[in-house]
Amino acid sequence: MTQSARYDAFVAKRVSIDMTRGKPAPDQLDLSQALIDEAGTAGYRSRDGIDCRNYGHLLGLPEARELGGVLLGLPASQVVVAGNSSLELMHDAMAFAMLFGVPDGEPWRKLDDVAFLCSVPGYDRHFAICEALGIRMIAVPMREDGPDMDFVAAQAASDAAIKGIWCTPLYSNPTGTIYSDAVINRLASMPTAAPDFRVFCDDAYRFHHLTERRHASADVVAACVAAGHPERALVFASLSKATFAGGGIAFLAASPRNIDWWQRHLSVRTIGPDKLNQLRHVRFIRDQANLARLMDRHRALLRPKFEAVLTTFDALLGGVPDVWWTRPAGGYFISLYTPKGLARRTVALAQLAGIVLTPAGAAFPYRVDPEDSHLRIAPSFPTLAEIELAAEGIALALLRAIETRE
Amino acid sequence: MTQSARYDAFVAKRVSIDMTRGKPAPDQLDLSQALIDEAGTAGYRSRDGIDCRNYGHLLGLPEARELGGVLLGLPASQVVVAGNSSLELMHDAMAFAMLFGVPDGEPWRKLDDVAFLCSVPGYDRHFAICEALGIRMIAVPMREDGPDMDFVAAQAASDAAIKGIWCTPLYSNPTGTIYSDAVINRLASMPTAAPDFRVFCDDAYRFHHLTERRHASADVVAACVAAGHPERALVFASLSKATFAGGGIAFLAASPRNIDWWQRHLSVRTIGPDKLNQLRHVRFIRDQANLARLMDRHRALLRPKFEAVLTTFDALLGGVPDVWWTRPAGGYFISLYTPKGLARRTVALAQLAGIVLTPAGAAFPYRVDPEDSHLRIAPSFPTLAEIELAAEGIALALLRAIETRE
Repeated sequence: MTQSARYDAFVAKRVSIDMTRGKPAPDQLDLSQALIDEAGTAGYRSRDGIDCRNYGHLLGLPEARELGGVLLGLPASQVVVAGNSSLELMHDAMAFAMLFGVPDGEPWRKLDDVAFLCSVPGYDRHFAICEALGIRMIAVPMREDGPDMDFVAAQAASDAAIKGIWCTPLYSNPTGTIYSDAVINRLASMPTAAPDFRVFCDDAYRFHHLTERRHASADVVAACVAAGHPERALVFASLSKATFAGGGIAFLAASPRNIDWWQRHLSVRTIGPDKLNQLRHVRFIRDQANLARLMDRHRALLRPKFEAVLTTFDALLGGVPDVWWTRPAGGYFISLYTPKGLARRTVALAQLAGIVLTPAGAAFPYRVDPEDSHLRIAPSFPTLAEIELAAEGIALALLRAIETRE
Repeated sequence: MTQSARYDAFVAKRVSIDMTRGKPAPDQLDLSQALIDEAGTAGYRSRDGIDCRNYGHLLGLPEARELGGVLLGLPASQVVVAGNSSLELMHDAMAFAMLFGVPDGEPWRKLDDVAFLCSVPGYDRHFAICEALGIRMIAVPMREDGPDMDFVAAQAASDAAIKGIWCTPLYSNPTGTIYSDAVINRLASMPTAAPDFRVFCDDAYRFHHLTERRHASADVVAACVAAGHPERALVFASLSKATFAGGGIAFLAASPRNIDWWQRHLSVRTIGPDKLNQLRHVRFIRDQANLARLMDRHRALLRPKFEAVLTTFDALLGGVPDVWWTRPAGGYFISLYTPKGLARRTVALAQLAGIVLTPAGAAFPYRVDPEDSHLRIAPSFPTLAEIELAAEGIALALLRAIETRE
């Protein structure tokens, strides 16, 4: 059968598979069933005698902050524990910056022009926050070891409107990039025209290894302190993909002065987070070793899905000119690159074949991939059998796109 | 013993009682112990088959929105269910208005002057949001049946900078005021110079009756629709004082257009709320009748505390010139009025006697009570024995303040 006939045969199967988002699969969520089953045992009384049912503890339950400190390698006093979404923390940090300014700066809303550096491809929800707030996005090419730091450093040094950069230092969404120590040290030490420059560091995949090697990226907060820019780093993380995607706990880590800033603005917004869920998480996660064991079990479920995609791409797309893909060592995504101008067409052909992909361009500021060549593949949610099928469908859609290009 | 000797004797007792906040007492929290004990039974699968552990359902679990609709008397489609704090929703609604504007208006941040009407005394956290955002607060006298509507209507009609009013229509914090239908209809129908005027209606005490009569205030959303201003009302409520103060669920109710507006901005901030807590609440609260039974049990615990304060005030302060207090039929507070100029002094004398009160002035914009005569008494959290003692101490502190005034 020709490739073209194979695509038509695939379409005739009328499959229906959603590959749009980096969602954990139900069997991954089952790994944390004890959070539900043992909620009664966890109760409401914290180690320190705090009644977690009542108001208060704005920055989080003390023992949850300690756990966050252990997991993020920082003192508990520099870690805030919040609700179920680190995206909320990133949004609010940027909204607070816009409305009130960050330490050492005036409110961004008072400036005619505010800009952010965005390595591309990147996380669509980071870009959506900037777009909503009217923050001009400057695309930065992503290299093997992180964002192109020559470009970043030149831009940040020369343009005071640039107030920060979005980073995902470990297993970047969607490229799987691991930032090198040199990149992180340069992010921390580079001179910036804006005195209130911030590295918004979304450490979303810190615990999410796909191989037996547990990679780590350098501590951004410590690097900024060492470089004499202690307030530069804001680090965001969560247990959303360790326990429950919709019911985990989220962390913000930063310098004491940034934490004071956060507390000041947070105290206007709420009386405190849901400490009961924090208590359940403390009792379930316990420590770093126990979390690592849990993440090993996630890996056992996720890795075959990633391998299925890569094996199929190797078989069907190996050697096709201008087609390549990432082989991530962690995180939730594979990036597939088509020949220029064919990403949107491939998504459309995949959709005709019953496979819904993240829209082409989604990983770029303003949803425009200037080369129209990047696809984000999210293999986590569907079953392994579906993933095997979907990978074939995507590859055949891409081959059809190449074959029929004008 | 003279009153003065009684105050000195009270000080000598060296009590220590915190009356600062409207916090539920532990025995009230115990009423919802099933939320913890039966979390395992509630599980994670909603009535509609939704896996509440995973991402999604930005506006809340459908059956939680239905419950909210039943409790608030509105279609589920006009109710958003969120996390543990309605204060967050109020803050974010105002922050979204500032950053992006509300339907029919431009972003408030683009205006030189934005003002809000605030009935006084009122809720300090409402005022803190305005103060943080630089929204000018205009104090409105509180009458028996709600804010002074002649004043409100005249101000709103003449000043386009006035973008809204804070309201607590039932058992207002801290006066216990029940807004009359006439007041609510006038809020809904009055012409406003600002086309994007909003009634921020904090329906915090909707279910919180202290007497057998379950008072109700008129439906603000319906009144605004009837008056031809369907987008005027934003209603906030929660189960924080029905179940767990720090672990309840919060509601936003408004017109379909306002809900669309909220959804648009919320979608940038989060992928969805903690649906597991929403599911637990749906299974625990069930319906209006069951919630009413739960609130009856709260009333049985709270009412003796309120009566203890009122009985002591009657005995010690009855007939004292220029001293009076409210007898609320619901909510969490008693307002005690001192002769002019003595509220701060009374708080200081109470503190010397071991009783920490909400700071005088806290219930006013910018924390300034121009008459220095209002005290907010929060009898919910301490034990009944402590409340009896505290009421005596407060009364004796006030009498000492009167006796020693210059």
